[in-house]
Amino acid sequence: MSITHVETSLYRLPLPFVMQDSMHGKMTHSEFVVVRLRDGDGGEGTGYTYALNSGKSIAALIDGELGPFLQGRDADRIEAIWKDMWWHVHYAGRGGAASFAISAIDIALWDLKARRLGVPLWRLLGGHDPDVHAYAGSINFNFSVPELIEQNRQLVDSGFHAVKMRVGKETLREDIERVGAVRKEIGADVHLMVDANMKWSAEEAIRRSRALAEHNVYWLEEPTIPDDVAGHARIVAEGLTPVAAGENLHTIYEFQKFMAANAVSFVEPDVTNCGGITPWMKVAHLAEAHNLPITSHGVHDLHVHLLAAIPNANYLEIHGFGVEPYVEVPLPIVNGMARAPERLGHSVDFVWDKLAPHRLR
Amino acid sequence: MSITHVETSLYRLPLPFVMQDSMHGKMTHSEFVVVRLRDGDGGEGTGYTYALNSGKSIAALIDGELGPFLQGRDADRIEAIWKDMWWHVHYAGRGGAASFAISAIDIALWDLKARRLGVPLWRLLGGHDPDVHAYAGSINFNFSVPELIEQNRQLVDSGFHAVKMRVGKETLREDIERVGAVRKEIGADVHLMVDANMKWSAEEAIRRSRALAEHNVYWLEEPTIPDDVAGHARIVAEGLTPVAAGENLHTIYEFQKFMAANAVSFVEPDVTNCGGITPWMKVAHLAEAHNLPITSHGVHDLHVHLLAAIPNANYLEIHGFGVEPYVEVPLPIVNGMARAPERLGHSVDFVWDKLAPHRLR
Repeated sequence: MSITHVETSLYRLPLPFVMQDSMHGKMTHSEFVVVRLRDGDGGEGTGYTYALNSGKSIAALIDGELGPFLQGRDADRIEAIWKDMWWHVHYAGRGGAASFAISAIDIALWDLKARRLGVPLWRLLGGHDPDVHAYAGSINFNFSVPELIEQNRQLVDSGFHAVKMRVGKETLREDIERVGAVRKEIGADVHLMVDANMKWSAEEAIRRSRALAEHNVYWLEEPTIPDDVAGHARIVAEGLTPVAAGENLHTIYEFQKFMAANAVSFVEPDVTNCGGITPWMKVAHLAEAHNLPITSHGVHDLHVHLLAAIPNANYLEIHGFGVEPYVEVPLPIVNGMARAPERLGHSVDFVWDKLAPHRLR
Repeated sequence: MSITHVETSLYRLPLPFVMQDSMHGKMTHSEFVVVRLRDGDGGEGTGYTYALNSGKSIAALIDGELGPFLQGRDADRIEAIWKDMWWHVHYAGRGGAASFAISAIDIALWDLKARRLGVPLWRLLGGHDPDVHAYAGSINFNFSVPELIEQNRQLVDSGFHAVKMRVGKETLREDIERVGAVRKEIGADVHLMVDANMKWSAEEAIRRSRALAEHNVYWLEEPTIPDDVAGHARIVAEGLTPVAAGENLHTIYEFQKFMAANAVSFVEPDVTNCGGITPWMKVAHLAEAHNLPITSHGVHDLHVHLLAAIPNANYLEIHGFGVEPYVEVPLPIVNGMARAPERLGHSVDFVWDKLAPHRLR
């Protein structure tokens, strides 16, 4: 079935509150790029990606290069389209805005395929188990200790049995005090993840990883820059806390290098920036072959399908970059569990009228 | 001195003839993004980058994200500006359009600095030797054998003592016949490079590398995809022809991995896509520490300064993506040599009136 329409829109969405981590400063908005595809039969698919900025650059790639390239292509042959998109923008691609643009299109192609086949995405992709463990991925670097305690008390009260907090403060002591306060509040049985957002050298990360072990941290996320595979391998081997990484890896090759080097314990691809569902599933299978679990980064509405599809699913991160108010049926989290919906495709349907005031192009 | 003006323009330039290699298909145009900076003193600097497409995406990043970010910054503190640009667009960065956009700005910053200091760029950056060996980087995959022979005869007659041709034909036999015909025409003493433009698997590349040795090939360029460091290392170790790579590597970290793994013999950063002069020089010094030579990819007007600056310079590739007609003083190549100019900055001054009809934005 040939693709006949490709429509791109760009929004700038206010976040529900000012978010801060150790490296990205204060975040007040996210940029949100949506692609809608139609085929000759009236079939439709929707894909999207997020960025902190750079939305115009991503949208320009879809409008100017990849969209025209899709016209008339057989929508079912996703591997062929994916490979051709990759090579079409390869020279200024291999990551960056190209990976985000390709992600949005690939997601739309899979949504279209699943809807046409009359199945939910998670069943099409593997159908392992619709029930997925969720954790709260709070961006709370700027919270005081009392605010941290209050936030995590509410999360545990609401049923979460796994929560994440941000680290990367000036001193190890401050990080450990904050983590200790949260651990004390949530008790010994709730999983506690921490996220350094790439702040440290490998050496500093090893030092903090060892200290964090006192509070039984489930994983330490992005301890250093994603370019430093050897550093991650050292942190895994010499630290005392498992390592999560992947939200800043944009190709299957980057993931392969991390896994082959024992540089990651929890593999965390983001379907909106790794190139879409096609490479996300390959990363998941690659992780399985390395005996590694898969977790996710943000975008829980989509990732619930992907984690439900595979046998090596770990936690689903719950945080949505401010898009929840614009989704028709937000994903319910009950007792810390999410369930992949039985509606068609990914079934993330947007309330276009509510999005409209935030449209940039 | 604070930056007060950032001006971006985008052009689509016709190539002098249809160019083809093994992977990019027929190329008829290049896209060309120019950044002009001014400081509070009236100092000016110009930077630019090329792409096959994606120009709008690159220009949107400069206009929308990086340009506003530069306003009021101290133009002399290039390392600080560079780091902040990298992190400002990091989430959709680390390569891709971001590396191209940052390249253009970084080149403009160095041009501005050199002009203000009253020196040519090559002297500011190291001043090793203004005389640089040049080679003709012909994109001639679609040429017949008689056309190849004619082209290379003319190149040798015009003084070149090093020439490159494209390989990656369906069969090894055809590649070897074409290379043999050119070798026979140019004689034993002219260096002959070949470029596969990422066409092969590592295994196929090793097979062809061994066969190419019969014709004494100076280097085999991009035998496989830039993501496959281990494959390149095998081609270096098991083939019989040295390996050049770098035009598709966009971060110092990617170059470091290649060098640490003995995966490259001739290191080939492109200043217009590796992040600009700042990382180009770091790559050059990293190569020196690995006892490796530096060559360049296209953009000879700029690269002549960079190769003239360093002690480990190898060949300067001569090919300009169609920009020559729009440059006030094209770089002369005399007896296969280029000389870094003594004019201020990089001294690549454009004829804006001639560019104007090709402007997209």
